[in-house]
Amino acid sequence: MATDSWVNESLYAEWGQRFLVKRELARVKSGFQDIMVFESYTHGRVMLLDGVVQITEADEFVYQEMLTHVPLLAHGAAKRVLIIGAGDGGVLRRVLQHRNVERAVMVEIDGEVIRLAKEHLPGIAGDAWNDPRAEVIVGDGIDYVRQAPAASFDVVIVDSTDPIGVGEVLFTEEFYANAARLLSERGLIVNQCGVPFMQADELRDTNLRRAKAFPDTHAYVAAVPTYVGGFMTLGWAAKDASLRQVGVEEIRARAQAAGVLGTTRYWTPEIHVGAFHLPPYIAAALAG
Amino acid sequence: MATDSWVNESLYAEWGQRFLVKRELARVKSGFQDIMVFESYTHGRVMLLDGVVQITEADEFVYQEMLTHVPLLAHGAAKRVLIIGAGDGGVLRRVLQHRNVERAVMVEIDGEVIRLAKEHLPGIAGDAWNDPRAEVIVGDGIDYVRQAPAASFDVVIVDSTDPIGVGEVLFTEEFYANAARLLSERGLIVNQCGVPFMQADELRDTNLRRAKAFPDTHAYVAAVPTYVGGFMTLGWAAKDASLRQVGVEEIRARAQAAGVLGTTRYWTPEIHVGAFHLPPYIAAALAG
Repeated sequence: MATDSWVNESLYAEWGQRFLVKRELARVKSGFQDIMVFESYTHGRVMLLDGVVQITEADEFVYQEMLTHVPLLAHGAAKRVLIIGAGDGGVLRRVLQHRNVERAVMVEIDGEVIRLAKEHLPGIAGDAWNDPRAEVIVGDGIDYVRQAPAASFDVVIVDSTDPIGVGEVLFTEEFYANAARLLSERGLIVNQCGVPFMQADELRDTNLRRAKAFPDTHAYVAAVPTYVGGFMTLGWAAKDASLRQVGVEEIRARAQAAGVLGTTRYWTPEIHVGAFHLPPYIAAALAG
Repeated sequence: MATDSWVNESLYAEWGQRFLVKRELARVKSGFQDIMVFESYTHGRVMLLDGVVQITEADEFVYQEMLTHVPLLAHGAAKRVLIIGAGDGGVLRRVLQHRNVERAVMVEIDGEVIRLAKEHLPGIAGDAWNDPRAEVIVGDGIDYVRQAPAASFDVVIVDSTDPIGVGEVLFTEEFYANAARLLSERGLIVNQCGVPFMQADELRDTNLRRAKAFPDTHAYVAAVPTYVGGFMTLGWAAKDASLRQVGVEEIRARAQAAGVLGTTRYWTPEIHVGAFHLPPYIAAALAG
């Protein structure tokens, strides 16, 4: 930690956010990355991987709700969900909120992230770790998608770091081809694609790769407070283009049936539908 | 400037953004505030007032478009527009884009902001300063609204600092009462209300004051990259609640007629309508 007790995020070399640290809770060099957990004055507890903010207790709801509820409710009948990454357990918890989900497999490469999240950020996953529908695997998501049987999942959610370092392999053509194979007929995959105001290339490049494996690709947006730089984008790749055309009332009915309606602090049916309408500067970044 | 060439925004004491400075362009202590303009590596030129980022060349379009096009197109027939603050001229430029606007009065208290914007950020206002429909007054917005004749404007746009320091008087009951008086029958006022994830009190408190003078109050959101912390809110106070119920196709037709459609990088008819659908955490902040 810097001697002045500020942590400066190192995602961008010339601009970024900083947090005044109240208390450092963990600093671990795992086999994959540097993990740091600290208590802030403003955002509850914060986890960084290789100097990049992954999650804060105060604003995690925005990211988790949009990364989970949008694909599951757009699909409408997802029973089997594969989660890659997301070692804090927050996506797992949101997936398991959906009554119709029968099985959620989470594959996180770094067991230390899970261990530290359980120890220092227990509220993020809540009881999800113990849900009988959950299967948590510490392993390589790339290997998992290579070996998964065809049509064995309805939705894949990729909650990874950016396409540099550990997360890079989760944005390749091979990965998306395997995802398309393991997804069922109306299946879709979403993954975090960074903040296009700062990382426009990331959105364009990964979208081109998704388009080689899926007939319908797009992106949707969420305003996550600590993914600074305006809207972040979530990448969208689906076998059926109608999944992102579902209207507000149908989404509301599905959320009600799933047990999700009224539990959210960012997601609503209107925001779900609106999130696919991209500002022109993001649409331009997507098109490249 | 700090000796390490980073500028740390001082809006919040324990969290914030920082910029690596390529070149300092101006640092002036005016009669009202400390003004700094510098060239960044990431966001073009940046202006700070009392240590708080007001505008960057790279992302000003988000804020200006949402602060201007939303009220003007929601009104649909605004001919006379009053702008309070906005010394950089960016709102003035966007207002004058609208063909139907006959008169735009801008009242900025700090002439040094205008001078420095003209010198160092000339692209923000473009030719707006010389438009025959524009009247630029260096003076106190409070006095102006006290003295303005009844029903003399259709839209008021307040682009001020936060309700602390210089900007505080633009969020009082007296100010909103005068705004209601000087606005025409279907008139409305919008003003920047900060980032509710960090400043929830600001939104609630000022909304209560707006509600004493206007029958319809609400807020709408924009994801401005350098107003860090997720969505910022723009406060909304109108004499006619139907103004925020106008549908996408009507807004598109009005934007086409006004000469605005296709000129924007953030605003679209869909984003216009969607911006009034607040995430629950913001709706809760508004309700208090």
